Order: sequence, then C-alpha cells, then structure tokens
Amino acid sequence: MKIAVDAFGGDNAPLEIVRGAVLAISEMPEDDIVLVGNEQKLQEILQAESAQTERISICHAEEVIGTGESPVEAIRAKKNSSLMVALSLVKNNEADAVVSAGNTGAYLAGAFRVLGRIKGIKRPALTTAMPTMVDRPSVILDVGANADCRPEHLVQFAEMGSIYASHVLHIDNPRVGLLNIGAEEAKGNALTKEVHGLLKENEEINFVGNIEPRDVLCGDVDVIVCDGFTGNVVIKLIEGTASSLFSMLKKVFYKSLKTKLAAAVLKPGLKEIKGKMDYTEYGGVPLLGIDGVVFKAHGSSNAIAMKHAILAARQYAAAGINEKIKDIVMAAKAEDEAAEQTE
Amino acid sequence: MKIAVDAFGGDNAPLEIVRGAVLAISEMPEDDIVLVGNEQKLQEILQAESAQTERISICHAEEVIGTGESPVEAIRAKKNSSLMVALSLVKNNEADAVVSAGNTGAYLAGAFRVLGRIKGIKRPALTTAMPTMVDRPSVILDVGANADCRPEHLVQFAEMGSIYASHVLHIDNPRVGLLNIGAEEAKGNALTKEVHGLLKENEEINFVGNIEPRDVLCGDVDVIVCDGFTGNVVIKLIEGTASSLFSMLKKVFYKSLKTKLAAAVLKPGLKEIKGKMDYTEYGGVPLLGIDGVVFKAHGSSNAIAMKHAILAARQYAAAGINEKIKDIVMAAKAEDEAAEQTE
Repeated sequence: MKIAVDAFGGDNAPLEIVRGAVLAISEMPEDDIVLVGNEQKLQEILQAESAQTERISICHAEEVIGTGESPVEAIRAKKNSSLMVALSLVKNNEADAVVSAGNTGAYLAGAFRVLGRIKGIKRPALTTAMPTMVDRPSVILDVGANADCRPEHLVQFAEMGSIYASHVLHIDNPRVGLLNIGAEEAKGNALTKEVHGLLKENEEINFVGNIEPRDVLCGDVDVIVCDGFTGNVVIKLIEGTASSLFSMLKKVFYKSLKTKLAAAVLKPGLKEIKGKMDYTEYGGVPLLGIDGVVFKAHGSSNAIAMKHAILAARQYAAAGINEKIKDIVMAAKAEDEAAEQTE
Repeated sequence: MKIAVDAFGGDNAPLEIVRGAVLAISEMPEDDIVLVGNEQKLQEILQAESAQTERISICHAEEVIGTGESPVEAIRAKKNSSLMVALSLVKNNEADAVVSAGNTGAYLAGAFRVLGRIKGIKRPALTTAMPTMVDRPSVILDVGANADCRPEHLVQFAEMGSIYASHVLHIDNPRVGLLNIGAEEAKGNALTKEVHGLLKENEEINFVGNIEPRDVLCGDVDVIVCDGFTGNVVIKLIEGTASSLFSMLKKVFYKSLKTKLAAAVLKPGLKEIKGKMDYTEYGGVPLLGIDGVVFKAHGSSNAIAMKHAILAARQYAAAGINEKIKDIVMAAKAEDEAAEQTE
C-alpha cells in the first residue's frame, strides 16, 4: 500500500510532516509513502534526518496552499500545489490514500473536485473521533463540511459514521445518537425532529435516540450525528472550554510557592487529562463519502500526530471502508426502488 | 416595587425558594415580595424560618407544574398552578416582576400566553449571562426559546441583548458578536451569512463581527447572538465539558495520599474556578421580549441563587428595560415605513 502525504500542509510543515512520515514508515513495514511538495527541500530534510529509505519517495509539487487562503480560489489557482497533487495521486491510482494537515476548506473542496463523491452519497462529511470520559472515543459527524443540511444528509452521516466506528474503531454494533436539545423525540429544531423519525426507522444502524450536549463527552453513544454547523460548534467549543479551564488552572497553580509544589505532585495526572482532551492523539480523521481515502490531520499536527494520521489512513484503506459504504448506499437504493415498484 | 416569586418551581422548592426570598427582602428595603403557592405550607416555612414580615405576602395557588411535564399541556391543564398564578399577578399589575425556577418550557409558554410579546417583537428570547475569562459575563441569546429562527429574529436578539447588557450589566456600548463557524463574513450557514449582513448595517448596535465557538469564554464580546438551538447546545456543552473535566481532575486528586494533600493546597483556587463556571452565581435570566418582567432562575437554584435572581429581576424592572426595547422596536418600525414611502 502507498500513502500520499501532503508535506507542505499544516502549521508545522514541512519538517514535522516529514518526521511524521519517517515515524510512520517504521511501523508499516510492508508499505510505502510518497511525500508531495518541493523536491529539493524534501530531499534536504530527509538527508538532515538521515531518513532516506527506498520506501519513502518524493513527488514534486511547486506550489503551497496557505491556511488562510480562500478554498475555492486556492484549488482553482494552484493546481500544482502539494495538496492538489497529493489528491491526484489517489485519483490516478498512484496512491491508496492521502493525508494532509493543510487548509481544511481547500482539502474538502479539492477532494470533492478531484475524487468526487461515492456514488449515491449526497454529502461527504468531515468526521472526528472525540475524546470521552470512557476509554474509547466517540465519532462525531459532520463537523464542518456541510453548514446547511437536509434530513437525508444526516441519515447518511449516521450510516457512514456507523461503518467507520465499527470497522476502524472496532466498536461492535455502534450506538448512534442524534445531537439534540432535549432527550425526548419531540424536542429540537425542524431538522432534528424530522431526522429522529428517519433514524428510528433505519435498519442499517443501531439508533439509541437523542444525545444532549451535556452528555457529549460521557461516551454513552459511539456515533454522534449532527449538521456541520452544529458539529463544528461542538468540537471548537469543547476545545475552547477545555483550554479556558486549563488556563484558569494554571493561574491557580502559579499563585505561590506552595501551590507550585502542590501542582508538581499532580502534574502527571493533569498531563494525562490534557492528552485525553487532545484530538491530535487520535490521529487524522476521514472525509467520509469521498470516493477515495482522504484523511485530514489537525492543522497544528506535530510528527507524532502525523504518524497517527498516516497509520489511521492506512488502516482505513486496508479495511475497505469505502466499499462497505458503497454497499450500504446501493442496498438502500435498491430498497427504495423496490418500495416504489410495490406502490 | 413588588416581586412575585413562584415558590413551588424548581428542584429545591419550596424551602430554598422561600429562603431565597427572605434573603432578598433584606437587601431591598423599599420593596415587597409575594410568594405564590400553597398558603398553608408557605406559612409553615415562614414560621419555621422566623421570617415573617409585612413585606412578604402569600398568594395561594393549589397546583404545581413539575419539571418533567409537557409545557403546553401543563399550562393548559394547570391554570391554578403557582407558575401560572405568579405570571397572572404581573398581568393584573399586582406585581412588577415574576421569578421562577420551575419548568422552563412551561414558563416560556405560560409567559407567552399570559403576558404576550412586546409589540413589534417577533420572538422573545431566553437570555443567559455566561461566565468568561475576564471579570464580567457575556450575554448570550437565544439559548432555547426558539429552535428555528429567521434572520430578522436574530437581529432583534442583538438589539434586545445590547439593551440588557448596557442597562442591567452596565456595559458601555456593548460589543455584539454573531456566533459563527469562522471569523470571515462569508463563513457559516445560510442563517448566519444573512444575519451577518443585517447586523453590519444595523445602527442600533455595536456589531464587531463573528465570534468563533473557541472564543466564547474569552470575553471578547459582550453579547453573543445565535439561534435557540445553537445557543442551547452552547450553554449545555460548556456545562458538560466543565463538569467532565472536573470529574477527571477529581480522579487525579484522589489517586494517592500525596495527591490528596497536594489537592488540598489548591482547593481554594479550584473552588473559585468552579464558582466562576457556575451559572447560578449570576442569578436569574430574563425572557427578553415578553411584555412583562419575567425572570428564570436555574432549576437547581438554592436560596443564594434565588436571592440573586430576585434582585436581578428587581433591578431589571427598575431600569425600565422593556420600555427601552419598545422604543427601539418602534424606531425601527418608523424607519422601515419611512424607507417604504421613499421607494
């Protein structure tokens, strides 16, 4: 298997990206990585890191898409960017998966343009594995690819999220919850009220009802379904709340010599909590519904996070998730057609 | 001034509610409180608390609306409930404001039914003062009264929130932010994109642009505007995240004797953080846009929280906020009519 890595995407590109690839390659002895970006610079880094190996190749790409650039304009104007070239490697079957820590919007738009959707999937979704209070993460989608959604989109998110949770996170019969304000079926906005009914009837998934925002981190459900606006609010707000609380804690710790000494005793435990709340530990997340294996690493990814993202992409590709999504979509379509003929 | 208090609303009713009223009355020497609920029980509590005063009277109401009851059915079936009778005291000018810690949905629906909206206000909004990293809270609305909103509703939320922040929280020229996924104007869903344009043109408010979920607790804006679904997700998710983090901290603290001793040193500072994240400290929140002063205290309010809510309602009534909302709505209407005539 060969994984394409956009070596010039993300806040710490290219050095940490290359280092992440080097770490990853040592954990996947059968596979190859192709680094996409300025060949000379990448050669220099590999030399400096003494990390030259036959299994890491370079595909030259002149341009770079910055984090702040307008996605649609960037992918139109920079066809030779590391991001677009990396995507095209998957399109041309020169790579089995692609990983980038670059501009999310451009990556989404580029994946859509270059690879397209899985046939039958209405809207690809950005999917994140969230930390929880229990020992396994919950999958949440969509977290930002689709700000406005129709009910049928959320139903497909539920189906794709279930496949992901079961085949990548190895969760048996994953429990699907609909993010909603209130536990009762009749609660919510027009979208969630309609989606609740559709999910209840859906036999492809294990729908367990609404999940309230208060319980998102409790790990009571394995897949959390919502529109992309709400999902993006959720992950950014958790991040913001945790970070605000940690800065308040820091102030308490640095108040006096006494508190500093006390904080030192608690440090290992606190570090563990911080690690748990840190999404990068969970590696990259897939763009579910794109016709190709497309993984997004956090923009601030370091080498460790990149390694996790590359390994996650490899695992996803090996598990044949997209084929499973295609099967379910086709089954649903056949069912709809059969129902139409009966009517 | 006379404040009506629903003595049988909330998890700790009636004892803590009555105690809260007793605490409040001692801080408002010119005013009266009328406790609404079962007269005999309330007499007994006042006697037991040795808190009989001429300034606390009782208005008998036989029925109680529970937290779990369906709002619409409850207000229809229980016209003699403490909640509905308390609202009617304001309607009949027998009280200047009403405070309840009871069933939020029933309170909203009851206020709408009994008191109606301020003329010109399309949707009343539930408003919360949120803790922030700086020393003053931010106002956020709507946090749950309207799950589905149109752009013009959010514009009115911005106007009402500004008046509240300036006249109750005494924030000069309050900065209004639109909760959105992304800082740029073009980001967001169909609703926020349209609202951004409308707020930018609005001369009644000091609009400073989008605020991202990550920054909600930073205190960079004074009024945060969003639809009721998103707002409800925001406040419940902050509560849930904070509570999850505190339980993780607790585990770290109780790990060993050494960590227990260290935690004891840090306890005062940690308690301060917990207090900051505790909404009840900020007292009750108004139903902005209702034609009457209607304050909601947290369902789990204790005596201190009730005292704060009663004092906040008193201050709100004294500041004549609803009259100011009426003025702005009328000015906007006159402007619209003038614009129509010019066309």
